[in-house]
Amino acid sequence: MARSYDQFCPIARTLDLIGERWTLLILRDLLVFGKTRFSEFQEGLPGIPARVLSDRLKKLTEQGLVSRRVYSEHPLRAGYYPTEKGETLRPVLGAIAQWGMAELLTERERQAVLEHIPSGSLS
Amino acid sequence: MARSYDQFCPIARTLDLIGERWTLLILRDLLVFGKTRFSEFQEGLPGIPARVLSDRLKKLTEQGLVSRRVYSEHPLRAGYYPTEKGETLRPVLGAIAQWGMAELLTERERQAVLEHIPSGSLS
Repeated sequence: MARSYDQFCPIARTLDLIGERWTLLILRDLLVFGKTRFSEFQEGLPGIPARVLSDRLKKLTEQGLVSRRVYSEHPLRAGYYPTEKGETLRPVLGAIAQWGMAELLTERERQAVLEHIPSGSLS
Repeated sequence: MARSYDQFCPIARTLDLIGERWTLLILRDLLVFGKTRFSEFQEGLPGIPARVLSDRLKKLTEQGLVSRRVYSEHPLRAGYYPTEKGETLRPVLGAIAQWGMAELLTERERQAVLEHIPSGSLS
């Protein structure tokens, strides 16, 4: 577990939940691209170690931001879905995406991104 | 240097700049509370090692989000200020703060936060 910032501040407390490396990108794949399966997250996150992905999904589940549903017992297969509380993080992802689009991308790159993301998925 | 996510995605590219531990809290102290001096950042961030604070301020400066101004040569004293580009991160901090206030704080805590932050500093 990453150490808590242990601050009263709502920014610090939010980052205690979603500030660890990879976590916001997992939420992106859940909320924007509707990914649900471990292997789908791995595909979207080149370089993430499997144990880190497990750890992040477990924490998100424990925090009530993601729910895990087992849909096959043999072999064991589970899917991950944003909870209602997890859905409320969409504007946070939206603000980050908007900043990146405005400040870091060229006009051509912005167009490519806008064609790629489902409309309305970030607000 | 934390590894880049090395993704085309604007969320990943934004997190390459501001996603490391402590960075968003340093930006909070710069943008919301107008802190400028190394010792002020240390006060607001209990537990941050001095070399980590140095590293984060150096990266923010290199990325053009913060400017460093030397105001005394003997002894050497410098202040840190958000650049125009750094100022554009305010809505990102605002979205994170708003989520934390709505989802993690009690009504009484929300009131305490609202009394504590300069009005308009997060939008």
